[in-house]
Amino acid sequence: MSVHKVPVGVSARHIHLTSEHIAVLFGNNYTLTSLKPLSQPGQFAAEETVTVIGPKGSFEKVRILGPARAASQLEISRTDAFALGVRPPVRESGHIEGTPGITVRGPAGQVELERGVIVAARHIHFHTKEAAEWGIEDKQLLRVKVEGERAVVFERVIARVSDQFALDMHIDTDEANAAGVSTGDTAVILTD
Amino acid sequence: MSVHKVPVGVSARHIHLTSEHIAVLFGNNYTLTSLKPLSQPGQFAAEETVTVIGPKGSFEKVRILGPARAASQLEISRTDAFALGVRPPVRESGHIEGTPGITVRGPAGQVELERGVIVAARHIHFHTKEAAEWGIEDKQLLRVKVEGERAVVFERVIARVSDQFALDMHIDTDEANAAGVSTGDTAVILTD
Repeated sequence: MSVHKVPVGVSARHIHLTSEHIAVLFGNNYTLTSLKPLSQPGQFAAEETVTVIGPKGSFEKVRILGPARAASQLEISRTDAFALGVRPPVRESGHIEGTPGITVRGPAGQVELERGVIVAARHIHFHTKEAAEWGIEDKQLLRVKVEGERAVVFERVIARVSDQFALDMHIDTDEANAAGVSTGDTAVILTD
Repeated sequence: MSVHKVPVGVSARHIHLTSEHIAVLFGNNYTLTSLKPLSQPGQFAAEETVTVIGPKGSFEKVRILGPARAASQLEISRTDAFALGVRPPVRESGHIEGTPGITVRGPAGQVELERGVIVAARHIHFHTKEAAEWGIEDKQLLRVKVEGERAVVFERVIARVSDQFALDMHIDTDEANAAGVSTGDTAVILTD
């Protein structure tokens, strides 16, 4: 049996915005500037940041990830959620029905998101070819181990398969800190 | 084979202080007041709190746990460590050789700890009788599972056995948030 290794990418708190919200926050016809490309093709961390304001606390310099999306979405850790005073569910990206909102402030204006705050469900991006070779299907739940002094097996890690994806396991800062791992470390998919 | 269940106790950031440091922070002959008893016999959360100040950030209202100890020790999560700007190792309580220091401020004065900042290594307190019945030895490393939508197996959980202890698994807020568990939830010790 072969061992399937996956690079780990730690997602700090970040926000995806619609074109409409970018216009309110930064001005009409404003275009995000790429600071650096992300692991998934076409995605980038923008130079621009916003302030997010919850009922209990706020965070400045929250990174925008581009390009613009069909719905705005703030992804935070559960630790962040306590600090902001919101109670977001653990969700897959894009599944924002029934999630709490938040206030977002930019240099040109402010937006009240009615929904879109989530704790991102941990997941692994697979390219279609790799997934086929490894016998992994889209939406499959995986068990994934990271070694070290805080070694952890993450259960229920969602497989996401697309020919637009590059191999990467995405966890949030709580998960990374609990397991003592950083971006660039390696995880192993366990086969029962 | 029997299933061994353990209650989970989540430790938020907290500090243990020597009598000398309590005197500097709160005044000569000051005695801590118990706010509520903790799971371990004789231990209590004090009404008193302090401010801890690192090179990058600070936290107010950090709870003191009593009674006074032989060495002062600040226990924080890795998330907290990034916010404060310190790099503490993962350590068992009391093992503070070579750990970073921090500034602690109270209503009557300020103390510069030369060392004592740790990220507490996750552990389970067992009473001697229970440990004997379950075949668990002091210092043994255990694998412990928590169920739920963020189900996790924590590896390398340290067993601590004493006739002064009550059964409780102690994890920090990063670990609790990563696993989606709260104080009072139940974990299960895995037997291979």
